[in-house]
Amino acid sequence: MIIGDVVGNVWATRKNDSLTGLKLMIVKRLDVCDDKQYESFVAADLVGAGIGERVLVATGSAARQYADVANALVDAAIIGIIDQVEVKQQP
Amino acid sequence: MIIGDVVGNVWATRKNDSLTGLKLMIVKRLDVCDDKQYESFVAADLVGAGIGERVLVATGSAARQYADVANALVDAAIIGIIDQVEVKQQP
Amino acid sequence: MIIGDVVGNVWATRKNDSLTGLKLMIVKRLDVCDDKQYESFVAADLVGAGIGERVLVATGSAARQYADVANALVDAAIIGIIDQVEVKQQP
Amino acid sequence: MIIGDVVGNVWATRKNDSLTGLKLMIVKRLDVCDDKQYESFVAADLVGAGIGERVLVATGSAARQYADVANALVDAAIIGIIDQVEVKQQP
Amino acid sequence: MIIGDVVGNVWATRKNDSLTGLKLMIVKRLDVCDDKQYESFVAADLVGAGIGERVLVATGSAARQYADVANALVDAAIIGIIDQVEVKQQP
Repeated sequence: MIIGDVVGNVWATRKNDSLTGLKLMIVKRLDVCDDKQYESFVAADLVGAGIGERVLVATGSAARQYADVANALVDAAIIGIIDQVEVKQQP
Repeated sequence: MIIGDVVGNVWATRKNDSLTGLKLMIVKRLDVCDDKQYESFVAADLVGAGIGERVLVATGSAARQYADVANALVDAAIIGIIDQVEVKQQP
Repeated sequence: MIIGDVVGNVWATRKNDSLTGLKLMIVKRLDVCDDKQYESFVAADLVGAGIGERVLVATGSAARQYADVANALVDAAIIGIIDQVEVKQQP
Repeated sequence: MIIGDVVGNVWATRKNDSLTGLKLMIVKRLDVCDDKQYESFVAADLVGAGIGERVLVATGSAARQYADVANALVDAAIIGIIDQVEVKQQP
Repeated sequence: MIIGDVVGNVWATRKNDSLTGLKLMIVKRLDVCDDKQYESFVAADLVGAGIGERVLVATGSAARQYADVANALVDAAIIGIIDQVEVKQQP
């Protein structure tokens, strides 16, 4: 899974029916070891995330292992709001 | 999912039968946080997108979660036309 | 899907049985927006492609959505010979 | 599969139910040929790994080929603790 | 599929049961068009490959399309020993 920061929302009126009712959020990937940022992407929110929150994202077919999105055209889903990250880099 | 701009079309007369009737479009991936462009790829259009439109694209097996392409050799699909993107980068 | 140029062939006598009878070709990925080349990979040919032809390639599980390779150890397949690409980059 | 070092833990109280009871660890990918480090990611621990251990990680749908995570929103899993790696680079 | 050179072995005593009996090898990815090397990864050997051999590797769910690894936590498999590669780069 990937860690990222929720930085925005996406709206699309014309879209595939399977996306109806899903909240689509822009997530900026982050490496928590060095705070380097990677490219952003769009994920369906499954946990009620808000802008500014650090989240856990499942990608690929993993993102559809849940009733609400089982048959949706979804390849990324926000699956947790991160409370704490503990990193102990080896010297 | 990925955000990108539709920049072109692809035509192929000799192709696998599962692609017959699908409109194949060239999409240039974009990071909406910094407008950086990434490599282009080809996606099957499921929503009637046109050149110049900003779109939402599902990749991998997600692209086939729809009757029209369920058994097609498709790994990317345009699934929405983006109306608006709101990005609030953290300072 | 990915666009690329067929640049070579691969032969392997000792191989998994599921590959028997498949023509394996080396494809060099290309971004048609700027002609930049990316790394090459090997794809199973499903359409009778030849060296020098520009082709459309499906990757991942998409490459197995076809009877001939449904149960083969294949993660990339040439699914079309490209006749024409039209790119209209936004200014 | 990927080799990496376990460098941390992630805690999330608000999360998808399928993650309950799973230990989520931060893994820093490593190329054992040249010790180069790549970006970190989060994997579900299936073997009792600890921080500082070098591990083997399965990604994508491979990470769910196990009863405990078969229907979980998981795209990466720690599947082994590495005892030894032998690399013989060609000159 | 990917071409690479087998450069090493990996041993793990504590591992998921589905890996028991599989030979895990380190493969260094190679672009046969320009001999550029990419990052290494670990693949399950399905064809009796040895260190120093150039091999064909299937990735993702393709790596499990075979009885021996159908339900294993495997996302990469060596599926052929390459005899010959012929590359004809376009001028």
